[in-house]
Amino acid sequence: MYVAGVGMTKVDRHYDKGFQELVYLAVKNLLNDVKEYSPQAIVVGNMMSSSLYQQDSLAAVVTDAVGLRGKGGFKVEAACGSGGHAIAAGYALIASGLYDQVLVVGVEKMSDYPTSVVTLALAQASDFEHEAIYGASFAALNALAMRLYMHKYEAKREDLALWPVRMHEHGSQNPYAQLRNRITVEDVMKSAVIADPIRLMDSAPIGDGAAAVLLTSEDVVRKLTDTPIQVAGVGLGSDGLDLASREDLLKPISIVVASEKAYKMAGIEPKQIDVAEIHDAFTITALLSIEGMGFASFGEAWKLIREGRFVAGDKPSLNLSGGLKARGHPVGATGVYQVAEVVMQLRGDFPGVKISKAEIGAAMNTGGVATLTSIIILKR
Amino acid sequence: MYVAGVGMTKVDRHYDKGFQELVYLAVKNLLNDVKEYSPQAIVVGNMMSSSLYQQDSLAAVVTDAVGLRGKGGFKVEAACGSGGHAIAAGYALIASGLYDQVLVVGVEKMSDYPTSVVTLALAQASDFEHEAIYGASFAALNALAMRLYMHKYEAKREDLALWPVRMHEHGSQNPYAQLRNRITVEDVMKSAVIADPIRLMDSAPIGDGAAAVLLTSEDVVRKLTDTPIQVAGVGLGSDGLDLASREDLLKPISIVVASEKAYKMAGIEPKQIDVAEIHDAFTITALLSIEGMGFASFGEAWKLIREGRFVAGDKPSLNLSGGLKARGHPVGATGVYQVAEVVMQLRGDFPGVKISKAEIGAAMNTGGVATLTSIIILKR
Repeated sequence: MYVAGVGMTKVDRHYDKGFQELVYLAVKNLLNDVKEYSPQAIVVGNMMSSSLYQQDSLAAVVTDAVGLRGKGGFKVEAACGSGGHAIAAGYALIASGLYDQVLVVGVEKMSDYPTSVVTLALAQASDFEHEAIYGASFAALNALAMRLYMHKYEAKREDLALWPVRMHEHGSQNPYAQLRNRITVEDVMKSAVIADPIRLMDSAPIGDGAAAVLLTSEDVVRKLTDTPIQVAGVGLGSDGLDLASREDLLKPISIVVASEKAYKMAGIEPKQIDVAEIHDAFTITALLSIEGMGFASFGEAWKLIREGRFVAGDKPSLNLSGGLKARGHPVGATGVYQVAEVVMQLRGDFPGVKISKAEIGAAMNTGGVATLTSIIILKR
Repeated sequence: MYVAGVGMTKVDRHYDKGFQELVYLAVKNLLNDVKEYSPQAIVVGNMMSSSLYQQDSLAAVVTDAVGLRGKGGFKVEAACGSGGHAIAAGYALIASGLYDQVLVVGVEKMSDYPTSVVTLALAQASDFEHEAIYGASFAALNALAMRLYMHKYEAKREDLALWPVRMHEHGSQNPYAQLRNRITVEDVMKSAVIADPIRLMDSAPIGDGAAAVLLTSEDVVRKLTDTPIQVAGVGLGSDGLDLASREDLLKPISIVVASEKAYKMAGIEPKQIDVAEIHDAFTITALLSIEGMGFASFGEAWKLIREGRFVAGDKPSLNLSGGLKARGHPVGATGVYQVAEVVMQLRGDFPGVKISKAEIGAAMNTGGVATLTSIIILKR
């Protein structure tokens, strides 16, 4: 199973574009990346079309946007992890023998609504009945994890500011990134408190965007591209939705389960991964992701970041796109962006910070507070 | 690829039960239907959790309800066709080799809200930007199709009342059905006009429910059951979301495309199908479904129904459950109910109107006005 081509839009506040325009633009870019395009089915990764835009049947919105009327498909929802789960579903549709070519599109529109409404929509990723309804925003729930992390592992707030600084540095070189300004630790520390200890610059911005990945069977991939990238591993995992029910808030089992499955399937260990895009909706999410995937022992990720690990050229190089923090986080689309970016890194044609001769990549996307995780392993 | 077991709740206005209770009860029934239960992943079919209940991450709601924390999965949305598409995704997860046992759950809660709110939520199945926003309810859009059907094919309103009469007759014998009263053509003709020519008794009721299907690979199915049912064909198709853009409102290409794919994969023709559950959210939907699947020529379904075709024992026997009309239509769950019912018919243990020695069955589920269709072919 292979990725034949990818395409995406810049993440931005696209006030002037709807779902169809965004999807169209992403697929238009994909068309420049493949020799042939004839998907037999589609999968859409999206979180908020139902709640914000009152639009279900989203797969039909997409098929019409990209000239595929008649072809079947469906939307996949796993909150902010919808995109990665859509890739997993697309993988399955091909590997099952049902189809030879499947288009996976991630798309999200968030900008058109006031922040209060988007904040409420984001809270739908958590346990609405037991958390959000009592006033816990999604940032507030992540703040619980961040405070616990700092307390248990004796990490200083300043140390944790290094991640967003690095993400903005990467984002500044990625033409598809929403935030392209460089920032300092001081900027992070002075930025507005969102939910203590989370500050504005720990948080992914609100934005819109679409990304597209064309998946194909081994039989047809050479007709579509000279630079196929193999989908070598797919792992999914879940954790308790309400944080109060978790065994350990700092060891999300969804990431551990998804990693084990994906690594085993790909026949690799985490230390073999050259490049990865991981979920960092908040700074704490990056730490939980790095540790859950086995790139650091539990409690050690912040130290390794402070030591300069995970930069371009290190193994793994993490979030060279700028991550959710700077590339942006059009929530249900993010997982598809990540796969597209890792594919470009493995091919050596990512238009921002890139590494050479990467052989193995990973894309890790999660919905909720690491509640529904997907991990996709890609090989050159 | 096989169905090892099924379970469902009665469709009803379950005011006293939430998503987790409904799912739990359906899976509890499934446990009585299998010798072993150890799903490695789940797929959830649901339409309205995001829009009505502000709950995303629905897969995590389900994993916790049924003792599967840690296992991965996602929600599938294809409006009222979500359940059937979830079955298709579950099929793919197993046939791809990713998993050996996948639990597919369809669940919907609609009763807790006033009819006006549910009507708006249902309109999300249509093109919200180009149809619903101008006041076209989902019933109104289907009424356009029904009026055109009656005009073009010279079908009388009374003739079209025969379908719901038959559905209530079937529903009266199905303990899982929401509507168990018998009705007459006169009852239909005297019932309230919803959107002329659609009357109340042409319309599926609002209800809640959950259904569960345990899918397994061939390797393990015999450990789980002595009565496996094969998933022999899976077809998906789409049509234009806004009706104004359709080539022919009475020939939904989504049904034609999905049928062709499913029949080809199963190596069958429609005339070989013994028993089927088809989508009849409105009486007109039944006619479009019957014709689109090739059980009647275009324009002929109403005549065949008038002649007494498609009753129990005919080939195919249609909607012995009572269909969406009488079994009920908890929208995103319906496609999973259908598969469970057809499985029971093929095994000979459906607890309502049933036929004997059925070999081949079909479940046909669609979202929107036949916009996103899935067809699942099952073999004994």
